[in-house]
Amino acid sequence: MGHRLFTPGPVPVPDDVLRVLSEQVVPHRSEAFQRLLAPVHRRLQELWGAGAPVVVLTSSGSGGIEAVARGLCPSGSRVVVATAGRFGEHCARIAERAGAEVVRVSAPWGEVVPAEQLQEVVRRSEPVQAVWIVYSETSTGALADLESCAAAVREVSEAFICVDAITAVGVHPCPMEAWGLDAVVAASQKAFFLPPGLAFVGLSRRAWEFVQKHPPATVYFDLQVAYERWRENMTAWTPAVSLVRALAYVLERYFANGLEPHWERHRRYARAVRAALEVFGMPIFGQGGSHAVTVVELADAHRSLPRLLQERFGIWVAGGQGQLEGRVMRIGHMGALSGADILALVSALGVLLEEMGHPVRMDEALRRVREELGPNPSWDGV
Amino acid sequence: MGHRLFTPGPVPVPDDVLRVLSEQVVPHRSEAFQRLLAPVHRRLQELWGAGAPVVVLTSSGSGGIEAVARGLCPSGSRVVVATAGRFGEHCARIAERAGAEVVRVSAPWGEVVPAEQLQEVVRRSEPVQAVWIVYSETSTGALADLESCAAAVREVSEAFICVDAITAVGVHPCPMEAWGLDAVVAASQKAFFLPPGLAFVGLSRRAWEFVQKHPPATVYFDLQVAYERWRENMTAWTPAVSLVRALAYVLERYFANGLEPHWERHRRYARAVRAALEVFGMPIFGQGGSHAVTVVELADAHRSLPRLLQERFGIWVAGGQGQLEGRVMRIGHMGALSGADILALVSALGVLLEEMGHPVRMDEALRRVREELGPNPSWDGV
Repeated sequence: MGHRLFTPGPVPVPDDVLRVLSEQVVPHRSEAFQRLLAPVHRRLQELWGAGAPVVVLTSSGSGGIEAVARGLCPSGSRVVVATAGRFGEHCARIAERAGAEVVRVSAPWGEVVPAEQLQEVVRRSEPVQAVWIVYSETSTGALADLESCAAAVREVSEAFICVDAITAVGVHPCPMEAWGLDAVVAASQKAFFLPPGLAFVGLSRRAWEFVQKHPPATVYFDLQVAYERWRENMTAWTPAVSLVRALAYVLERYFANGLEPHWERHRRYARAVRAALEVFGMPIFGQGGSHAVTVVELADAHRSLPRLLQERFGIWVAGGQGQLEGRVMRIGHMGALSGADILALVSALGVLLEEMGHPVRMDEALRRVREELGPNPSWDGV
Repeated sequence: MGHRLFTPGPVPVPDDVLRVLSEQVVPHRSEAFQRLLAPVHRRLQELWGAGAPVVVLTSSGSGGIEAVARGLCPSGSRVVVATAGRFGEHCARIAERAGAEVVRVSAPWGEVVPAEQLQEVVRRSEPVQAVWIVYSETSTGALADLESCAAAVREVSEAFICVDAITAVGVHPCPMEAWGLDAVVAASQKAFFLPPGLAFVGLSRRAWEFVQKHPPATVYFDLQVAYERWRENMTAWTPAVSLVRALAYVLERYFANGLEPHWERHRRYARAVRAALEVFGMPIFGQGGSHAVTVVELADAHRSLPRLLQERFGIWVAGGQGQLEGRVMRIGHMGALSGADILALVSALGVLLEEMGHPVRMDEALRRVREELGPNPSWDGV
């Protein structure tokens, strides 16, 4: 038996997707590749709720953020970034390196920036070129109220609304057009059942128009070239063709019925894990809300839990990042996990806590988990 | 039977490497990943002939070029670029977008910029921050005399000598320290038996020192962060872990005895293909010299050859790029090709030429091919 990954990216990849990864490569300047990419492009637009192109880049999600920052936030422009965790800070740094003047609106880690506060800062910072919001902050588990934030910004500004949705797309609703978003970035190794290596960038029509008129200070992340190649069902530069082929398979296999079944499954997984933690008396960090990851506060006596889960049971969770290092463990719920995996995690956690002398009502925990999971929460059954 | 790829990237990936690609992913912030990356780092240094770090980036080779341009050619600096094909022009554009003032030294496509001419332009352009040279120009098949060019530049300038060696490392000798090179970029989908998605960037010690002191205008391609993570056997951002694992396998399996057997095999493949073309009366374009790719001039009557090779025999070669579109076909010799594949290519080409009414001495062609291939030129026997 292999390891079980409960890390918030990379996530466990299904066996059938791994098999597609092992198919021979095809040349990326060929009709065969165009036939592969055409349905990928259509399906991504559908998943993004976007009429305009969603392009595939060969990079991590950070590369997707940089591509948008380069394309929409030229040097010297003013950008407002909502930060309340490591990835909000990451967006701010990427915009700064791209030469933008960054105005941070911060909330304590574990919370989110309220829509009214964001609106107020945008109002008094005008002219604002773009506003960056992290939808699901992977370092804290907090979920921004993206729809309200976008609406609040739109009331006072024409700024591009750019979203780090890397652990959100596929986990929570994120309809670009319905919510008036201008850029939504996601990545393969989160809710897409894939290894890392691809970023997905959707822009609104007005954002694509801006990109057409403003060549960015980068060639690799030049979205103008990506747009032109998109029209030919190609990519700007040599893509990770194995990953693109696996993406084509995943979009056909797992997203044939859209995103709703995946939202529901992540919701159930998150609630099941949190119910067990409640029974075990382990507090959730901050306000939470993201179904991609559960961030758990660790008492000093429990700091070895992530290591023990791995050593004793082959279960990988993530530790804390930045100011949360050593203070929390982060349990991801994305990728090829099943209800049985959730039961395994909760049981293993219970066993370790009991060994540490922590009182554990295992029957109660497993009863609550079963209730929350419901009849068929399998990633494979969607 | 699948297709045979004679494209100059992506190249055919061996079956055992494809199987490694299909292994479950590991988290990239883990000791397991560090154990994977440590020998990769050591082996890359050995292959680069470098005492200083060679880092792994998740991007195409173009991303590697951009990382070096960002790191070593800050905005406002002057950069001399030797261009004689599509990829030389690509390097020039990347440096321009990074904000450098680019001085081009051009030769006609198919030729290379002579060392004396490069030296003269560098001399009169001082101060020069960096000189870019494409070692193996994939669009024309020409091979620069890199050692002489580097020595000539060094006589007159302290400029960083940066090399696009994307279709050179693994095909031709490219020892960084021995030749005094400051940056050497390669990519996974060329001579490394891998799918696209990884770039490799080696810098000299003085180049790394410069990078330490000059934070670049990029986060994704920030070599300073790449260097810091390298010391921990990590990568700057989330890497394409499947490809990194396959890279670890390839470096252990195919490069255990260094690069020499690969140089020899590419040399034999190139000579075998060219011997057959000579017998067929098909001229090589330009001065050639690169063993990565053979660029063949196509008479008007033969323009359908690339398409027919694919349709009739499942053999993929590449067409011309830029000003050579429609005028040449490009035959790559990298990746998991065997002597039998070379025979298949030559035979198929002979059959098609004969059908077109072109006189073909097949016996003579195959005899010459056999002579050039020698006893065991298989990629698998190295």
